[in-house]
Amino acid sequence: MADSKPLFSPDGDPMAAEALLRDVFGIVMDEVIRKGTSASEKVCEWKEPEELKRLLDLELRSEGEAAERILARCREVIHYSVKTCHPHFFNQLFSGLDPHALAGRIVTESLNTSQYTYEIAPVFVLMEEEVLKKLRSLVGWSSGDGVFCPGGSISNMYAVNLARYQRYPDCKQRGLRALPPLALFASKECHYSIKKGAAFLGLGTDSVRVVKTDERGKMIPEDLERQISLAEAEGIVPFLVSATSGTTVLGAFDPLEAIADVCQRHGLWLHVDAAWGGSVLLSQTHRHLLDGIQRADSVAWNPHKLLTAGLQCSALLLRDTSNLLRRCHGSQASYLFQQDKFYDVALDTGDKVVQCGRRVDCLKLWLMWKAQGGQGLERRVDQAFALAWYLVEELKKREGFELIMENLSMCVSGSCPPACGGSRKARITVKGWLRWPRYSRSAW
Amino acid sequence: MADSKPLFSPDGDPMAAEALLRDVFGIVMDEVIRKGTSASEKVCEWKEPEELKRLLDLELRSEGEAAERILARCREVIHYSVKTCHPHFFNQLFSGLDPHALAGRIVTESLNTSQYTYEIAPVFVLMEEEVLKKLRSLVGWSSGDGVFCPGGSISNMYAVNLARYQRYPDCKQRGLRALPPLALFASKECHYSIKKGAAFLGLGTDSVRVVKTDERGKMIPEDLERQISLAEAEGIVPFLVSATSGTTVLGAFDPLEAIADVCQRHGLWLHVDAAWGGSVLLSQTHRHLLDGIQRADSVAWNPHKLLTAGLQCSALLLRDTSNLLRRCHGSQASYLFQQDKFYDVALDTGDKVVQCGRRVDCLKLWLMWKAQGGQGLERRVDQAFALAWYLVEELKKREGFELIMENLSMCVSGSCPPACGGSRKARITVKGWLRWPRYSRSAW
Repeated sequence: MADSKPLFSPDGDPMAAEALLRDVFGIVMDEVIRKGTSASEKVCEWKEPEELKRLLDLELRSEGEAAERILARCREVIHYSVKTCHPHFFNQLFSGLDPHALAGRIVTESLNTSQYTYEIAPVFVLMEEEVLKKLRSLVGWSSGDGVFCPGGSISNMYAVNLARYQRYPDCKQRGLRALPPLALFASKECHYSIKKGAAFLGLGTDSVRVVKTDERGKMIPEDLERQISLAEAEGIVPFLVSATSGTTVLGAFDPLEAIADVCQRHGLWLHVDAAWGGSVLLSQTHRHLLDGIQRADSVAWNPHKLLTAGLQCSALLLRDTSNLLRRCHGSQASYLFQQDKFYDVALDTGDKVVQCGRRVDCLKLWLMWKAQGGQGLERRVDQAFALAWYLVEELKKREGFELIMENLSMCVSGSCPPACGGSRKARITVKGWLRWPRYSRSAW
Repeated sequence: MADSKPLFSPDGDPMAAEALLRDVFGIVMDEVIRKGTSASEKVCEWKEPEELKRLLDLELRSEGEAAERILARCREVIHYSVKTCHPHFFNQLFSGLDPHALAGRIVTESLNTSQYTYEIAPVFVLMEEEVLKKLRSLVGWSSGDGVFCPGGSISNMYAVNLARYQRYPDCKQRGLRALPPLALFASKECHYSIKKGAAFLGLGTDSVRVVKTDERGKMIPEDLERQISLAEAEGIVPFLVSATSGTTVLGAFDPLEAIADVCQRHGLWLHVDAAWGGSVLLSQTHRHLLDGIQRADSVAWNPHKLLTAGLQCSALLLRDTSNLLRRCHGSQASYLFQQDKFYDVALDTGDKVVQCGRRVDCLKLWLMWKAQGGQGLERRVDQAFALAWYLVEELKKREGFELIMENLSMCVSGSCPPACGGSRKARITVKGWLRWPRYSRSAW
């Protein structure tokens, strides 16, 4: 065992490995890219859980399986999975398939590195900074900070944690018990991650004060003001307002200018959860829906939704230029973030986050952007609005369907379709109206 | 705009998309899988940050770029990135390339779904449960719960959050201010995420009581007992001990049986951060290093480290059978977790987590396991130990190198290499001794 001969790996054969990867890639091309995007195929071969368990033989055993069996398993996994790239997939806030984004994801997976230091991710450290800079510029900031997070919920939690740290830096060391009772504010249509985050961060769900919305689902700034006064009267310290640009169910855009005024008057951190609606900033025609976002302190924006960058791609953007992220989250682990490296250690961005290893989430967005250009992405957003209007008009003509409401955002955009009459009868909600046209053979 | 004709997508061409994906896959095969694993190529074409910025032209512009330019960009990204699959890559706790895991990751990316409901991820909901069951069975549990998290740091945070919720369910709603002051315990060699997590969760870093370690970096149970008494004497409530199986720098395995005894005596939640060392449970020869882990309440185990499943693959395992995960994190969002679906809604596992959208992290591990079998994975772990011993013996023979220490874990294993003399002189630490043989053409 301990002689001078090198030890050899007991498993594997590089030719077999390459053949496997080629075969699996071929299966992906046939079954996902081609059939999965064809309107004449099913979105999903649906099976009840018990039957699917029997069909898949999921058990992990002691013995390995031959290559042919492994390929058959890949086919089965794909066969019984939902094709989120299918033109008829409407279940969630992501859908479609951008080939450049997928290409970026395949490169990312093959390189399999972590985003924490320049020495281990030189390209991706620089690329993440460039992508974040571009997203910040669309928000309206010429400087700032940011990081890609594992999803919008965690981006929102970061914002809350940063806001309380900025106000009470002691919190990091001494915890919430050293602080006065705190309150944050979000509308009743906000994403559920705001309450989940408040619980996780130790604030408790009671710390989230629910602000009323209007009939279109937008936060009412006057009620926000009222809720702030109520909290203060109870001896509770307001510290953050989370506005939403694109609510989950109604697609409402909170009035950011008015909310920013309130925040300014009370000295509160303004966070904008634009996980879904942030990508509208790419559209010259529709970006007014987010007017005022440049006054925010933080923005959560998920290009894996409207821009189809692929799960996960969630940016937390900050206006801060005081290194708040690193001060709030840094712990200077000496085994990873040595200070005597031969490059500027500010590039070791890993200490900005609460994770240690962190996936590379920037390449898929960067590559797609390079291929499409900002103009191409803008066309997609505009097309998504056009499709939503088309759907609305089609629904109006059909027996058995009635609109609950038309989204006010569309009406105030100045480019409202002629037939818009603001009918608000019940039966079906036009949600998912920002869905953008997916990669579909049948549609081309 | 609002007539009855379907709208067409303004961009894309399915043939071009397929060609792009084929070309990018070809580049990945040549530049990562083949050259990236060749010992005669460089691990990294290193450039200083300023030069690399110039070489890469990272800026995102308004105009899109032609297909040829995009392919050249993919080549550049790979060229200047670190090849973590290279046989000479020793920078971090992950390395190597398993072709089956990579195949699973490519399928995952192409299907691009979220792990939250059965209807959107039928295969992966069932698969995650099966993989978690297998990992739990290796811990020694015939039942329990669990979830894949975005990395070990967040898995550790989950454990802390669950422990405090179990003791004080009020915390979810009312926050930490409604609770007495709390303390958790971890050794001075524990991962830095324990302190980062304490800060993020609102407990504050002061709530982490640091327990002394012995000369090999293992937690001293007597000091743990002492620290618990000290905290109690200060009126602080101990609630969790985080032991480490495989510390980051020294690779130490804390004595879990003795620590479990202490936890039992004091009624504390025992968490084991086995992010790195958990995979040793696969080895009949070496799994004794984790003896006592079956007495834990929670275990964090990252198959993306020693098993090379690919970033990210981090399981949080729980002994709990009372639905603690869902009670602690659930918020019953009505738009996603409807209770009147046509299948058992317990399969909608998304409400167990603090994320909303969540990546599929189980397929890569499942496919690799199916291909290698438990036996194949066990051989890898054993081989990693053998390689570590080989390195130790080689180092002893070389001029200019001296061992700081040999890892005690190896000595107590009963299969210690004959030349082990416990020399402890300074110069170089044998860290990374569990690294396993990577996919390398030159080594096969």
